[in-house]
Amino acid sequence: PFHVTWDIEAAEKGGYQHFMLKEMHEQPKAVKDTLSPRIDDENRILLDELRLTGEELNHFNKITIVACGTAMHAGLVGKHAIETFARIPVEVEIASEFRYRDPFVDERTLLIAVSQSGETADTLAALREAKARGAHVLTITNVVGSRISREAHDVFYTWAGPEIAVASTKAYITQVVALYLIGLYLAELKGTMTRQQVGEKVAELKTLPDKIQQILDQQETIQELANKQFNQQSVFFIGRGIDDYTAKEGSLKLKEISYIHSEAIAAGELKHGTIALLEEGTLVVALATQEQLYDKMLSNMKEVKARGAYVVAVTEEPRAAEVALSADVVLTIPDTHNEFTPALAVVPLQLFAYYTAVARGADVDKPKNLAKSVTVE
Amino acid sequence: PFHVTWDIEAAEKGGYQHFMLKEMHEQPKAVKDTLSPRIDDENRILLDELRLTGEELNHFNKITIVACGTAMHAGLVGKHAIETFARIPVEVEIASEFRYRDPFVDERTLLIAVSQSGETADTLAALREAKARGAHVLTITNVVGSRISREAHDVFYTWAGPEIAVASTKAYITQVVALYLIGLYLAELKGTMTRQQVGEKVAELKTLPDKIQQILDQQETIQELANKQFNQQSVFFIGRGIDDYTAKEGSLKLKEISYIHSEAIAAGELKHGTIALLEEGTLVVALATQEQLYDKMLSNMKEVKARGAYVVAVTEEPRAAEVALSADVVLTIPDTHNEFTPALAVVPLQLFAYYTAVARGADVDKPKNLAKSVTVE
Repeated sequence: PFHVTWDIEAAEKGGYQHFMLKEMHEQPKAVKDTLSPRIDDENRILLDELRLTGEELNHFNKITIVACGTAMHAGLVGKHAIETFARIPVEVEIASEFRYRDPFVDERTLLIAVSQSGETADTLAALREAKARGAHVLTITNVVGSRISREAHDVFYTWAGPEIAVASTKAYITQVVALYLIGLYLAELKGTMTRQQVGEKVAELKTLPDKIQQILDQQETIQELANKQFNQQSVFFIGRGIDDYTAKEGSLKLKEISYIHSEAIAAGELKHGTIALLEEGTLVVALATQEQLYDKMLSNMKEVKARGAYVVAVTEEPRAAEVALSADVVLTIPDTHNEFTPALAVVPLQLFAYYTAVARGADVDKPKNLAKSVTVE
Repeated sequence: PFHVTWDIEAAEKGGYQHFMLKEMHEQPKAVKDTLSPRIDDENRILLDELRLTGEELNHFNKITIVACGTAMHAGLVGKHAIETFARIPVEVEIASEFRYRDPFVDERTLLIAVSQSGETADTLAALREAKARGAHVLTITNVVGSRISREAHDVFYTWAGPEIAVASTKAYITQVVALYLIGLYLAELKGTMTRQQVGEKVAELKTLPDKIQQILDQQETIQELANKQFNQQSVFFIGRGIDDYTAKEGSLKLKEISYIHSEAIAAGELKHGTIALLEEGTLVVALATQEQLYDKMLSNMKEVKARGAYVVAVTEEPRAAEVALSADVVLTIPDTHNEFTPALAVVPLQLFAYYTAVARGADVDKPKNLAKSVTVE
C-alpha cells in the first residue's frame, strides 16, 4: 500500500474534452513544478535526491538507462544530454530486452530506471537485475511510494501530477526535463562545464514553460491539419540526431491513440528501404530543429517530396521561411538551445496525434488493447 | 578504378525468375565460401586479415559497428555474438547518425564498418571520422578494391559473389557469418573461450550451409503462405533478443520489395503502444528460436492472437508442435546453437518477402525509389 499525495479532485477533466488534452495543457505547469524545487535564484542546480559526490560519480564508467515505451524515448533524449553535458557514455536499453540478456553492468554502472507509474513490470525487473550486479540505481518516476521508487537507491520525482490518459504527455516532458537537470548536475560535478555554463543552460530551461505554452496556443492550426490528414493509412516520422528521438515519440503517440500505422525512421536510413513505401500524398512528418544537421534534413525532405510525400515540417521559428521551401506545411516551435528542442518539438506532435484521433472518432483516453501502466510482463 | 574479380557470366539469372531468388539459393555456397578459407580441418579459425595479437586486442575497450540498412542488422547479430563469445562491449550505430554526433571513439576503439558494396557513402564517412579519432578500422565487405576496403586498416571479405538484386540476401548472411568468425576469433585470443569450445562452435558453423539448403527446400510452403497473405496492409514482426534483430531484417526485406508497411517491434514493447494497431486478421510474424526467451514469446503470441492477429511463427523443428498451439502457421528451421539461429531464421523471411512481392506483381529486383548501393548521403 502506498500513499498518494495528489488530490482526487485534481484528476478531473476541468472543462477539457479529454484527459489527454487537459494533460497537454498542464505541461507548462508540470515542467515548472519539476524545475523549480531544484534550481535557485542564481540558476544553480540542487539535486538533494542524488546523493553522489564528484568522487563517487567519477567511480562510474558508464550510465545505463532502462525504460519502456514513451519513457524509453525520454531516455534517448537523456542519453544525448548527459553525453553532451557530462561526457559520460550512456546506453539506453528497452527494459524487456535488458533483463533477459547478460548486460555489461557492475558496481561501476549508474543505472537510471524511468517509469511514470513506478510500477512497470519489466523496468522493475531490470532494476532488480542491475542491483544484483552491483549497480547504483536512480529512478525517475511520477508516483511517490511506487514500487520502483521504493527499490531504487535514489529517486528523482517528476512533479507532473496524476496522468490519467493512457498516452503519456506531461509525464514524458517532465522525464526529459529531469534528465536535463541530471545531465547538467553531473557536468558540474565532473567539471566538464563551469558553473556559469550550467547557469546559462538553467536560465534557458526556465523559459521552456512559456515556450510550451506558445505552442499550445497554436492548437487550432494543428487541429485543421489533423482534420485534413486523418485518413492516412501510413505515416512516417523522420529526423536526425535528437530529432530522431522526438520522431519516435511523435510516432508512438499517433499509433497508440489513432491506430494509424506510423513509424519513425532515422532520416539517413530512409534510402535503405523505407523510401520504397512512399506514394503520392503519403504523410511524412519531418523534424528539423538541429542546426548542424539542417542541410541534411532539408535534402531528406526534398527527397521524400520528390516521391510524392506530403511533408509537414517542425522547425524553430527563425528557420520557418527557409524550411517552407521544402515542405507543404511548417509547424514552428520557439527558438531554444539545440539540446532542449525535444521538450518543445514533441508538443505539436502530441497535438497532431490527439486531433487525428479525435477526427477518427477514437477513444482518445483509453485506446483499445492498452493499459496505462503495464504491470504484467 | 578497381578490379572486379568475378566473372560477368556468373551474374546471370541462371534459370531463376529473379536475381533475388537466385541469390537466396546461392546462400549455402556463399556461406561455405566465406567459412572455408578461414577454418582448417581441426576447426581452428585462421583470420589472416585481422592482424591483431591478443595484446593489441586487449588494448581495445570496446567495439563499435557502423553500417546502414541490412548491413546494420547484421551488425546487431554480430554485437550479440561478440559480446557473448568474447565479452567485449559492442555498440551498433547507424552510420548516418554516428558521423554527425560526437561519439566516444578513440585509439582504444575497434571500429567495424559493414558494407556489401564497400561504397556506402555514410559508412565511408563514419569510417573516416573514426580513423581521424584514432580508432583501428576493420571492414566487412563483399567487393574487392572498393573504397571502404581501401581506407580500412584491415579487410574481411565476404565471398558471396556479385549480388545484383537490390534487396540483400546472400551478402547479409555472409556478413553474419563473418561476425561469428570474428567473435570466436576474439574469444580465443582473449581467452574467454578455450580452443575446444571454439572448435565446437566452428563445427556447428560448418553445418549451416546444409541447414540453409533445407529451408530453401521448403520454399513452396512459404509461397503458398505468401499467396494467401499478400494483401495485408500492415505487417508486424516480433521477437526478443537476437530474434528481434532477425525480425528487423525480415521486416525490411518485406518493406523494400513488396511495399507493404511492415515494422519490427521488440516483443516486450508491444504492450507499450503497437498492440493498439492489431485488428482481426493482421499478420504478425513471430520469431521464437531462443530457448531462454521461449515462454515469454509464446505468451506474446497468445497476446496478439487474442487481439485477432494471424500469427506465423518461425521456430526450430523440435519446438514446432508446441509453438503450433499459439500460432496459425509454423515455419521451421533446423536446430542449431542459439547464437547461430539468425543465419537460419532469416531465410524463411527472405522467401516470404520474395513471394509476397511476386504475388503483388512488384518489380522484385529493382524496387521503386531504391538503389543497390547508396553512394550519396
